[in-house]
Amino acid sequence: MKYLVGKTESGTAVFAIEGEKACNLTQLNPAIGDDLMGLINAPELLESTAAQMKDAPRVDLASIRPALPVANPGTIICLGLNYTDHIKEGGYDIPDYPALFMRGKNSIMAADAPLVRPSCSEKLDYEAELMFIVGKGGRHISEADALDHVFGYTVFNDGSVRDYQRKTHQWTPGKNFDNTGAIGPVVVTPDEVPAGASGLKIESRVGDEILQSSNTGNMIWSVAQTIATISEYTTLEPGDLIAMGTPPA
Amino acid sequence: MKYLVGKTESGTAVFAIEGEKACNLTQLNPAIGDDLMGLINAPELLESTAAQMKDAPRVDLASIRPALPVANPGTIICLGLNYTDHIKEGGYDIPDYPALFMRGKNSIMAADAPLVRPSCSEKLDYEAELMFIVGKGGRHISEADALDHVFGYTVFNDGSVRDYQRKTHQWTPGKNFDNTGAIGPVVVTPDEVPAGASGLKIESRVGDEILQSSNTGNMIWSVAQTIATISEYTTLEPGDLIAMGTPPA
Repeated sequence: MKYLVGKTESGTAVFAIEGEKACNLTQLNPAIGDDLMGLINAPELLESTAAQMKDAPRVDLASIRPALPVANPGTIICLGLNYTDHIKEGGYDIPDYPALFMRGKNSIMAADAPLVRPSCSEKLDYEAELMFIVGKGGRHISEADALDHVFGYTVFNDGSVRDYQRKTHQWTPGKNFDNTGAIGPVVVTPDEVPAGASGLKIESRVGDEILQSSNTGNMIWSVAQTIATISEYTTLEPGDLIAMGTPPA
Repeated sequence: MKYLVGKTESGTAVFAIEGEKACNLTQLNPAIGDDLMGLINAPELLESTAAQMKDAPRVDLASIRPALPVANPGTIICLGLNYTDHIKEGGYDIPDYPALFMRGKNSIMAADAPLVRPSCSEKLDYEAELMFIVGKGGRHISEADALDHVFGYTVFNDGSVRDYQRKTHQWTPGKNFDNTGAIGPVVVTPDEVPAGASGLKIESRVGDEILQSSNTGNMIWSVAQTIATISEYTTLEPGDLIAMGTPPA
């Protein structure tokens, strides 16, 4: 399934995408709610709505204005540089633990909203990333069980204000300017992609210009390893967002 | 005013402390709710409850089991080492920006709950800190206006798993083990303390043994400077928690 949370004249809703069309699931079953938390907490809602979907009207995908897939994420955890591309080029050692930092909810926004460069800096930079949304929560999740805890995958532009990221060794300020992290818009369920969303092309582009290009198969820490590593120290909750780091520019 | 959010047989409530006694404000005015968010969002609730307080019954302070002052804080931001004591000893330069990191809500708990050392580490360490609770939110708050945005002050034990804090340059894992940050229990309003809670003794003790002892007047970044610095990059929200760093051990 490919989901889009977005706004039309009838309000914010969860849509199922089918090509260039989309089906308003919230209208079919209001229990689904207006972001993905309803389906994350009660996956059976999809099954009970499926029969109604067949004859339901479709809207043009282009007519939907994207909103956040999870309106109020509890925790947003991001990996620093997580691609072997850099390491291969530079002859560096592969580190044995990921660099993890957090974002607050004011730093993120929906995919079609403008990233806001603050007036205090010229150095707002893009970072294309794979992001996943936690489905089932848990602590001490083993790598073997980890992928059962993924609700779906999306993309993230981890907009970073570089000079503030480097004010000290802690990256928090440069990664937390209001409205600098764009999420989505499409969320795909794990059955739509290879295990752990590995082996997928990842690019950032402005028009035809390719700014970053790599493959999620080059990630140092896989999605499964990341879930095991993070859940060693904290309980993951349904709807938490994890960003998997960016390839070299 | 000195507040305590806590549990008795009649549930979780906000109490006003008077010596060894406390008055259940939530019972007098249910609109106050069961944590400080009611008073943070509507400070006038205190005034409208004040008349009833005079004749209201009191309970023994000791009979109340502390709860979190803010049950679901949106954002928790912490300063790294923020005391000149270290710098004076070591001849270091005073840094020109604070080291800021974030905690997720699973890492904090009420003051009387045990800090949990995880089985994966022997290195759980205490850190006594001043903490403040944001009252009025805002962005681009000037240092001159900053203290108007403080609802109250409390204390924080920023329990840190040192080996995980140092796995990489980003401190997130070591600062985010579940149930390692104890908040409160008492929250004092700004009128009870010097401006910015500066000039106060800060100590950590186990029984009679003093583990840390300093004065909040030794903080490098004051509360007002911290609010100005953080609100340069993010919108502070009512109920956000800011921990002001720990003195040397």
